[in-house]
Amino acid sequence: NERKIVKKKSNYKIKTIFYKMVNAMSMVDYDIDKHDGKVIVNICYIDKKYADDALDLLKEAYKNNLGIGDKFGFIEEKDKIKIQTLCSITIDGILLKHSLPTIPKYGGVLEIKNEKKRFIDIIAYNGSSLDPHIVFFDAVDCESTILAGFREFHRIIKDDIEEVLDRLNWNCVIGIGEPNNEIFGINVEKDMCGIVYNGGLNPIVLLKENEIPVEIKQMHEVVDYSKLISYKEI
Amino acid sequence: NERKIVKKKSNYKIKTIFYKMVNAMSMVDYDIDKHDGKVIVNICYIDKKYADDALDLLKEAYKNNLGIGDKFGFIEEKDKIKIQTLCSITIDGILLKHSLPTIPKYGGVLEIKNEKKRFIDIIAYNGSSLDPHIVFFDAVDCESTILAGFREFHRIIKDDIEEVLDRLNWNCVIGIGEPNNEIFGINVEKDMCGIVYNGGLNPIVLLKENEIPVEIKQMHEVVDYSKLISYKEI
Repeated sequence: NERKIVKKKSNYKIKTIFYKMVNAMSMVDYDIDKHDGKVIVNICYIDKKYADDALDLLKEAYKNNLGIGDKFGFIEEKDKIKIQTLCSITIDGILLKHSLPTIPKYGGVLEIKNEKKRFIDIIAYNGSSLDPHIVFFDAVDCESTILAGFREFHRIIKDDIEEVLDRLNWNCVIGIGEPNNEIFGINVEKDMCGIVYNGGLNPIVLLKENEIPVEIKQMHEVVDYSKLISYKEI
Repeated sequence: NERKIVKKKSNYKIKTIFYKMVNAMSMVDYDIDKHDGKVIVNICYIDKKYADDALDLLKEAYKNNLGIGDKFGFIEEKDKIKIQTLCSITIDGILLKHSLPTIPKYGGVLEIKNEKKRFIDIIAYNGSSLDPHIVFFDAVDCESTILAGFREFHRIIKDDIEEVLDRLNWNCVIGIGEPNNEIFGINVEKDMCGIVYNGGLNPIVLLKENEIPVEIKQMHEVVDYSKLISYKEI
């Protein structure tokens, strides 16, 4: 085989969601002490006629720790309601602001049975053009299964990450693994720890489970945290 | 940070589809010259009342090169019809039997517009517990979009692969890239070539597009090639 290498240029390259996440992460500037700054939210739309039911269900969802944090957006747009829920990339962004890097690995379905948790389906962010949580949206019920995200970080920053998450004090982390140890059925690379986040779309899953038709946008949005409302204020 | 490493054992580990594919690949023993041997098929079920319509549509699909090869299985099972279509892993298995290794990388949606082709969505096999073609099944229409699989092989075996595929003479390959060159929007590793296969489920997509409800099984099956029937014989 003779060696003749020609490199063809193409105008089009398919992107995976991983790079969109890394991009979104860098836009977070939430300040833990001031409780304000830019955060990333998932977006979905419902018909205005479901507004009251949806608010009740969202309140219930956040009370039962299905959401990330305790705030969400609920905005009238013509005949629709736009719902914004905190996206788990916000957590990565906040950690990154403290110079603590996490690597997004998988989005998946976490099964919860008698307090035991395990991932039963996963899709790798760096191998997929689709957001895994949109793929799995119809496959979870918020009872025995929820959406969850898997990240890896180096063992050397474990204590620091735990400290920042403590100070942040949001409902968001489902579990942190020991160095080199699998967590909920997913292995980690050498010297790494796994961390499992609650999926930002879980409150929306509860709407779907209660027969409210939801239209989910794959695009994330950057918003000011102060523009969101706490379920406790409703 | 003190160095104390404890490794916890777990009974459960989540698997990706990649390893199931490598396993299935090794079970293929189709002989190109004898036109017989074990092949891998996708499986789906339809209600018996759609049998005639489904046969007509499958015939049309294979005539229009939507299928892999020209044979499929059509078996009555109680009140259902079980349809078997050749799965693209069969091609990998046949190449492997000639000691020509291909690495399954992505399953995806290939857009075809004015003879131009590009992947518009992909999921990596080694990062997903789900078969990407089942994820994308409802997203394609067999007109402007089809299911397609992406593999990589080393440039050194390009001629040999092309020779075996010529001898095989099945409808299955949509394109082979030059070494180091992207193909249809997907990059390859250094010294590798991309090869794009037609998705084995495309004939079933045509049934779905014609309002025949289909139930797809993620599990593949090993069958004797001789048990399948050619669309030309119907």
